[in-house]
Amino acid sequence: MELSLLDDIRQQNPVVLNISNFVTVQDVANGINAIGASPIMSEEIAETEEMVGISQAVALNLGAFSEPQVAHILKMGQTANALHKPVIIDPVAVGAVQYRKQVAEELMAQFQVDVIRGNAGEIAALADIAWEAKGIDAGSGSGDLVAIAQAAAQKHHCVVILSGETDIITDGQHVAKVFNGTPLFQLHVGSGDMLSSLVGAFCAVTTDYFEAAQTACLVFAAIGELVANKLEAEQPGTFSVRLMDGLHLTSTDEIQKIARFEVVDA
Amino acid sequence: MELSLLDDIRQQNPVVLNISNFVTVQDVANGINAIGASPIMSEEIAETEEMVGISQAVALNLGAFSEPQVAHILKMGQTANALHKPVIIDPVAVGAVQYRKQVAEELMAQFQVDVIRGNAGEIAALADIAWEAKGIDAGSGSGDLVAIAQAAAQKHHCVVILSGETDIITDGQHVAKVFNGTPLFQLHVGSGDMLSSLVGAFCAVTTDYFEAAQTACLVFAAIGELVANKLEAEQPGTFSVRLMDGLHLTSTDEIQKIARFEVVDA
Amino acid sequence: MELSLLDDIRQQNPVVLNISNFVTVQDVANGINAIGASPIMSEEIAETEEMVGISQAVALNLGAFSEPQVAHILKMGQTANALHKPVIIDPVAVGAVQYRKQVAEELMAQFQVDVIRGNAGEIAALADIAWEAKGIDAGSGSGDLVAIAQAAAQKHHCVVILSGETDIITDGQHVAKVFNGTPLFQLHVGSGDMLSSLVGAFCAVTTDYFEAAQTACLVFAAIGELVANKLEAEQPGTFSVRLMDGLHLTSTDEIQKIARFEVVDA
Repeated sequence: MELSLLDDIRQQNPVVLNISNFVTVQDVANGINAIGASPIMSEEIAETEEMVGISQAVALNLGAFSEPQVAHILKMGQTANALHKPVIIDPVAVGAVQYRKQVAEELMAQFQVDVIRGNAGEIAALADIAWEAKGIDAGSGSGDLVAIAQAAAQKHHCVVILSGETDIITDGQHVAKVFNGTPLFQLHVGSGDMLSSLVGAFCAVTTDYFEAAQTACLVFAAIGELVANKLEAEQPGTFSVRLMDGLHLTSTDEIQKIARFEVVDA
Repeated sequence: MELSLLDDIRQQNPVVLNISNFVTVQDVANGINAIGASPIMSEEIAETEEMVGISQAVALNLGAFSEPQVAHILKMGQTANALHKPVIIDPVAVGAVQYRKQVAEELMAQFQVDVIRGNAGEIAALADIAWEAKGIDAGSGSGDLVAIAQAAAQKHHCVVILSGETDIITDGQHVAKVFNGTPLFQLHVGSGDMLSSLVGAFCAVTTDYFEAAQTACLVFAAIGELVANKLEAEQPGTFSVRLMDGLHLTSTDEIQKIARFEVVDA
Repeated sequence: MELSLLDDIRQQNPVVLNISNFVTVQDVANGINAIGASPIMSEEIAETEEMVGISQAVALNLGAFSEPQVAHILKMGQTANALHKPVIIDPVAVGAVQYRKQVAEELMAQFQVDVIRGNAGEIAALADIAWEAKGIDAGSGSGDLVAIAQAAAQKHHCVVILSGETDIITDGQHVAKVFNGTPLFQLHVGSGDMLSSLVGAFCAVTTDYFEAAQTACLVFAAIGELVANKLEAEQPGTFSVRLMDGLHLTSTDEIQKIARFEVVDA
């Protein structure tokens, strides 16, 4: 873990370009802004090259896409590859909806992704491992989550984040686990999408995307935990507001103090 | 009223599929989540059958639609009919915009709706009764609101919710009225859209949609009232945040204590 | 400055029609609602004439547009001209993305805008003055901001608002400056878009758009400052919630007490 990356984001203020899920887009933009980066969103394929050119990372959310957006995502990913910008994908609901899995795999066959972030159901689907996903939720399954994440990472030649009570981050061999967090993340729809775009902000300030992915998970989970600890009850609305405050105000020292994680060699 | 339906939602966690109004979609998704159901949104017609298949109710919001969305809404409604999933429609601004009324009626001629939820201006339009609607607001009109709701229900062969200071719910003959609520609902744009999707959550756990519609109205209005009672002033921002907290935390007992409603036989 | 315009909005409750940026649309709708006007959004070109007809002002946000939206924006602007409704444009990121500048200028060549609101990077671009914009942010440049705003106003024959630490408002000759505000506006992505649509609400209640633009800036900046003054830290999430409260609750007297501005003749 390299918590100094958070300070780097706040100093460098990198531009993170997003194809976003219209469900959660405002929260994602505000989260990127709050942590110290600069969000930009696009819906028009004609501006792809310029947009990628002015950005330091590209986060592609596959939630609620339409056909024109799929073409846009494809061009965005290919352009990011050509311009050597990191690409993060959030494969929303690919575990529950076969159509989405198919589109996601077709896309990933045509450009190289650097980080995939999803829940157990989504990552299992991308690793071709059986799992009972439920809509946008992780659902339930047996099976070793670390092995699932590693299989997905090996298949797609990238870093994989499997979000859950414990976040599992792997480059296919090495594994990091983040134990911080709060159940309130599950009660706020934008949390996963926000983390995916924050991973973009971390990838914008280092070329070690495995390190970036781990640190993003730790920072997000620890800030969520700190915010949740101060609530008087399980308040999803208040949590989402104070999470934004926390993303802006929480220092690396405060995160360090409560950080619970392990990094395991392969 | 069957307040135990709220407990059923929280236990069964049904998936509510939404074609949503892009203006309010994040709030609607979070509201569904907060009350204990699982939201999913779609923008792509190719995934309609799968999406309806994994869902227990379908909520179709006609606010701010574009032509491709109309085709999507049509297929969603027809598929829901074929798979026997309840269909809820929110006919945003059909009272103020003739084009929207025409599209809404064409859609409803091609599939069967189970519940319509709108304000007085919207329901009057769908009952072909004169009314001065104003944009997305109810506007003003004379005329017996109960008779208007009944006429709309009879015309469209479904349950109708006419939202307002008093909510009127009818199957065309029987009538229920919910007197709980707060003016703050009108100051938060997403309130009506959220209620429409929450009606979907209630329809997902019973086959008695008249009962589901009444109970959804009571639960939403009572939680809003409880939240508003604790505010120090008429604060629309704070209200919207605490409403989300309240949807998650409020028990059926707390609702029972302040419930004010009547159910009248035809 | 004519603070009584705020009271006029609250009494007349004008309908403000928006083509909105999907990133910030819910916040914008709620902001219009909170200040006392009535928001309506549209995504379908077929309803343009009806929609403009029922509205008292039209706010066109050029953030994150797609090609179909550009056609829609064009028809909306031309229809507003034909029906003599005020037109406000927010040219998001035209300073950073050449494609957006080109589209914005093509649009503005085909209908007459009454007010343009943007940050320094965006207004400099529309005045053809060199500036280093950064994504959606103002970026940095040398050059006299008043002269830049005046050049943009003269080129486009309209009122220009250049938002920043000091807001500069000009009709091309006369200049007003608003010194109120808070850095928290920059930490909340929807702030600029919201102000643009609120300018629409002010233009809906007077034919003096220069006066409307100044007053909108003063009201928004002063309410933001009042809200920020009560925060215990730089909390962007809490700020955005209380800003909504403040838009609804703040009186003209409270604004008058902290108002800091100057109006300079040409």
